[in-house]
Amino acid sequence: MAGTRSATTILARSSLLQLSRAAAAPARRRPNLPCPPRDYSKMAGSVGSNGYSAVTRVLFCGPYWPASTMYTQEYLQNYPFIQVDEVGLEQVPDVIHNYHICVVKNKRLDSDIIAKATKMKIIMQYGVGLEGVDINAATEQKIKVARIPGSTTGNAIACAEMAIYLTLGVLRKQKEMDTAVIQKDLGLPVGETIFGKTILILGFGAIGLEIAKRIRPFGVKIHATKRNWPSSTMPCDLDGLVDKKGYPEDMYELAREADIVITCMTLNSDSVGIVDHKFLSALKKGSYLINIARGGLLDYEAVFNHLKSGHLGGLGIDVAWTEPFDPEDPILKLPNVIITPHVAGITEYSYRTMAKVLGDVALKLHAGEPITEIEFVN
Amino acid sequence: MAGTRSATTILARSSLLQLSRAAAAPARRRPNLPCPPRDYSKMAGSVGSNGYSAVTRVLFCGPYWPASTMYTQEYLQNYPFIQVDEVGLEQVPDVIHNYHICVVKNKRLDSDIIAKATKMKIIMQYGVGLEGVDINAATEQKIKVARIPGSTTGNAIACAEMAIYLTLGVLRKQKEMDTAVIQKDLGLPVGETIFGKTILILGFGAIGLEIAKRIRPFGVKIHATKRNWPSSTMPCDLDGLVDKKGYPEDMYELAREADIVITCMTLNSDSVGIVDHKFLSALKKGSYLINIARGGLLDYEAVFNHLKSGHLGGLGIDVAWTEPFDPEDPILKLPNVIITPHVAGITEYSYRTMAKVLGDVALKLHAGEPITEIEFVN
Repeated sequence: MAGTRSATTILARSSLLQLSRAAAAPARRRPNLPCPPRDYSKMAGSVGSNGYSAVTRVLFCGPYWPASTMYTQEYLQNYPFIQVDEVGLEQVPDVIHNYHICVVKNKRLDSDIIAKATKMKIIMQYGVGLEGVDINAATEQKIKVARIPGSTTGNAIACAEMAIYLTLGVLRKQKEMDTAVIQKDLGLPVGETIFGKTILILGFGAIGLEIAKRIRPFGVKIHATKRNWPSSTMPCDLDGLVDKKGYPEDMYELAREADIVITCMTLNSDSVGIVDHKFLSALKKGSYLINIARGGLLDYEAVFNHLKSGHLGGLGIDVAWTEPFDPEDPILKLPNVIITPHVAGITEYSYRTMAKVLGDVALKLHAGEPITEIEFVN
Repeated sequence: MAGTRSATTILARSSLLQLSRAAAAPARRRPNLPCPPRDYSKMAGSVGSNGYSAVTRVLFCGPYWPASTMYTQEYLQNYPFIQVDEVGLEQVPDVIHNYHICVVKNKRLDSDIIAKATKMKIIMQYGVGLEGVDINAATEQKIKVARIPGSTTGNAIACAEMAIYLTLGVLRKQKEMDTAVIQKDLGLPVGETIFGKTILILGFGAIGLEIAKRIRPFGVKIHATKRNWPSSTMPCDLDGLVDKKGYPEDMYELAREADIVITCMTLNSDSVGIVDHKFLSALKKGSYLINIARGGLLDYEAVFNHLKSGHLGGLGIDVAWTEPFDPEDPILKLPNVIITPHVAGITEYSYRTMAKVLGDVALKLHAGEPITEIEFVN
């Protein structure tokens, strides 16, 4: 119903929520953040020292994850020289030339669009996923591309909690539980515990580490893959969190022992479709698959077929192959498939923290100060 | 729909599943249990040494939690001198005189029904809750009443995992997530993490301890109440799992600091309705309430009103005031209220383990051997 929401709808909603800074609303409650923002107010109205015009403009692409725009606008509400706008996905090419910072969300920024971004200094994600950005095109145009590291914002923690929620949801057969409630059954379905399982974490980064810390005391074995395992710097080495460490090519071998697979990898040309027929066939019958990273990591046809045959016992996903995902898609009709609307990282805490990071980036860019809060990838 | 299922329906289902031992089905797969059952087969057909007739009869009351009957029948399938039957709730008074062991489930066994149980030796729960049994009446009639301690069967672990599932469900606003998927929204709702919260566990028994072990590494403070805190024997003392220990009367004081309350108490005349207006009013606005113990612990009106006013931010329950609970009950229509069909303890592992406990109790009763697997309360 909201899948085809027009920019007009979005702007109307912004207006309704008094989010538009143009509305010059009275000061709103300051978000409850770990540290207060630096006092940039002395620069209000000044021309940025890096040669900018009076206003540094931040563009949010598209209507989804609305709290990202809302919290950033709230964080920056006392800095009239920073303008934060949200526009519809289709409008982005027409307005991107006006902006200095772009928050990409789920918009694909290909070389054609980037070519129009003549004032752009930073393309970034409100989070970590940059798979939609043509980084080479940005580099050629001297635009920096960055993510907000999840380990410092609460994003990794939030995603880890969601992974555990989805894991419990498939183990307890959420759909069947809902049906039992409606049918006035009691004590059905018979579920499974995390206790006793072997968990395979594909891509043991910040999120994987937070999952391991939390799921370890459930009574599990943890196996994990990672491109580079620093020999002594990973806490997992110190804390004994990972029982078996593998490299990406070991995933097929590790699959044989796994009861639950959680994908936490970055999506790139190496990882797209990596959870494929070969990998799924290597799993034990009845294994569960959880994806809180990116939908493209999973080969749709392979996952669909292994669910249908019963070889996969369940699928819990916060991310899908297209987003927003068609709620009528056949895969969602299969037993024990549950989906959440790409909210793993979306909590009050992580979003307020990321609003502060982004807000401070905008303020520093405006002031010509070095930017250290984000992780540049080019 | 199934709330008024007749005994006929149930028996038909049993027959369908080939659960009736009368069907003399060929040997089924032996449940995958930690230890093999003792070899009682030499006694097959013998008269029990405690003066029983040739067959020891076990009665399961009512159709709910069907896996309890099924797994017990499977466990005992090679012992023809143990008969396991499941009858409808209304039939119990008419047949109870034929049975030696009664598994009460959600049947109320009042003094009238117990008076009819002339051959009964043990009334027990497939789990821990005995609030439906008139223990005094049983004692007068020299019937022992017992529970299966959850700490040894996996029941406490299963319930603890469910408590964490429900906690995550209300923090992430499960209902709103489902709506967002259907409406093709993305990145909504904004949820909360367990991280940073203060958890109050009311009734720190076996389940509370398992919750604490698992939820501690989420980054929380844990407060708990318990009638008796042994000074040195509780693991929580050793492991530093509980930040503040209180007695039942401290619950109002502890409520003031809690973000999430999880009720794990036994239901009895002291605890019925203990989560009342006074307690709920002492909570911070927006706190969450989770109940995986018994519905009667919560005062329905008080909880309803505090949800409606928004003082309670969410309610996650595996147990309800009447069971099965009316899916159209107004409390379920309130925002951020989620319910599961009393399955917290129902996992393959815990139910197979309890089937072994119950099966061994029946075998020992038949053989006249001392029974140690269960906890007698009279």
